[in-house]
Amino acid sequence: MAVNSDTNKYLGKMEDPWKEAMDHAVAVARKAGAVIRDALQNEVKIMCKSSSVDLVTKTDQKVENLIIASVKEKFPTHSFIGEESVAAGQPCILSDNPTWIIDPVDGTTNFVHGFPFVAVSIGFAVKKELEFGVVYSCVEDKMYTGRKGKGAYCDGEKLQVSDQTDIRKSMIISELGSNRDPETVSKIFSTMQKILCIPVHGLRGSGTAATNMCLVASGAVEAFFEIGIHCWDIAAGAVIVTEAGGVLLDVDGGPFDLMSRRMVSANNKTIADRIIKEIDIFPAERDDAVKK
Amino acid sequence: MAVNSDTNKYLGKMEDPWKEAMDHAVAVARKAGAVIRDALQNEVKIMCKSSSVDLVTKTDQKVENLIIASVKEKFPTHSFIGEESVAAGQPCILSDNPTWIIDPVDGTTNFVHGFPFVAVSIGFAVKKELEFGVVYSCVEDKMYTGRKGKGAYCDGEKLQVSDQTDIRKSMIISELGSNRDPETVSKIFSTMQKILCIPVHGLRGSGTAATNMCLVASGAVEAFFEIGIHCWDIAAGAVIVTEAGGVLLDVDGGPFDLMSRRMVSANNKTIADRIIKEIDIFPAERDDAVKK
Repeated sequence: MAVNSDTNKYLGKMEDPWKEAMDHAVAVARKAGAVIRDALQNEVKIMCKSSSVDLVTKTDQKVENLIIASVKEKFPTHSFIGEESVAAGQPCILSDNPTWIIDPVDGTTNFVHGFPFVAVSIGFAVKKELEFGVVYSCVEDKMYTGRKGKGAYCDGEKLQVSDQTDIRKSMIISELGSNRDPETVSKIFSTMQKILCIPVHGLRGSGTAATNMCLVASGAVEAFFEIGIHCWDIAAGAVIVTEAGGVLLDVDGGPFDLMSRRMVSANNKTIADRIIKEIDIFPAERDDAVKK
Repeated sequence: MAVNSDTNKYLGKMEDPWKEAMDHAVAVARKAGAVIRDALQNEVKIMCKSSSVDLVTKTDQKVENLIIASVKEKFPTHSFIGEESVAAGQPCILSDNPTWIIDPVDGTTNFVHGFPFVAVSIGFAVKKELEFGVVYSCVEDKMYTGRKGKGAYCDGEKLQVSDQTDIRKSMIISELGSNRDPETVSKIFSTMQKILCIPVHGLRGSGTAATNMCLVASGAVEAFFEIGIHCWDIAAGAVIVTEAGGVLLDVDGGPFDLMSRRMVSANNKTIADRIIKEIDIFPAERDDAVKK
């Protein structure tokens, strides 16, 4: 309290080369969340549900542009991987350059329906290593942050994963995803059923990967796994989970790979390994696959 | 604004014989929710997860006693059906007498894990007809109310179900339940898979029936169905859904029966009927079955 704010800033910069970027991420995520909330309150509610798929695309693009423009102004040399930019044909390659990995509206189906879990997700990597993550759950108005080596927080409160090691007393969260290919759906349901019958306390699904990872970080569930997620869904959450004491693994038990579209995040390796035993793996093309 | 509050009370009583009871339900639900939030913040968070099953029973009983004692003092002739009272051997019979149907902590597994959907549910029936329902989603701090013939509200805002009639653009919410009997679990998963592959936009599960019904009422999902719920899970939500313009049916398409432990609640009959086609029914003993 005795240190003045200029000194604080100076110390901050000295201690943490990415503090300014992280502060900016928090500020722009909050601004983006306000745009999403506004769209939810003033457009989703009053519109015919059949037009809402267009609205989500419009909001997605608007929010991603807002974030990228704001970051570019402050950090003109940085790179970006954004859901909408990739959809528009931009490459999805993680280079050594400082890179912002952005999901402007995580939980688009929730958004369309006004289901109360929608998040802005901003991850930041340097030399292909994640440095910080910011997830703003904008309907709940909860700001989750994680900074490599410095812990994870929700609205200033330190996050800690659950200490549970008994899978039978665990709650697991996952998603059915948007793939409706019958073989894939059967594998997803088979996995869910096997996990439920271990048995576990329960299975949940919020409809957003970013929020699911924050629920792991805060100890409300022991694990979240999914095949088919994209790097922008989980980059921020990955830092938040590990900084809250959790682990990240591939669904086959190997090391976590951000671009692989497969992930188990859990409170500890015991729980992760037990879940991995039950996962029926199905193919998902890597995010960084070279398009032909 | 010109009418003074005494006149208001008088008019209220004249217009609505159960206004005083409903006001009392809202007040006591809020008080109960504060007790639950307190237990979540001060006990669940700091305790070893293995002891939390005892905590939920303790909180359940404490909250139900609080509600019943408070109502009895004001309405000494009324009857009660409460989850904990029934568990302790009280009969679960709906008579013609004014009856309070209480779930003190709906979402006990969520409670144990600190998953953010836990609700106090208070329904009120006279001559076996539901008159009002109050659901207080206490972590979100949202108060849902429904009064027969007078609409449903969340924190003063009028609720209206979704106007969607196309199942393919719908979001459905359900629960896997606590039954781990393999045949039952298989039927539950088979139903979920068939519904997902109609296809629908998505499936969700919050872990509390009362909250799920409020999500139908507020238009965030088109339908909620479950076999195995109890009358105290859905009595309040039943009024809230119908007063928001929704429908209630049995899972076989017949009329809704509060004591049957089976229910489809939906925004309209088109959506309800389409879901009912896919439900694999399994047996659940009625709440009012005579115990031998």
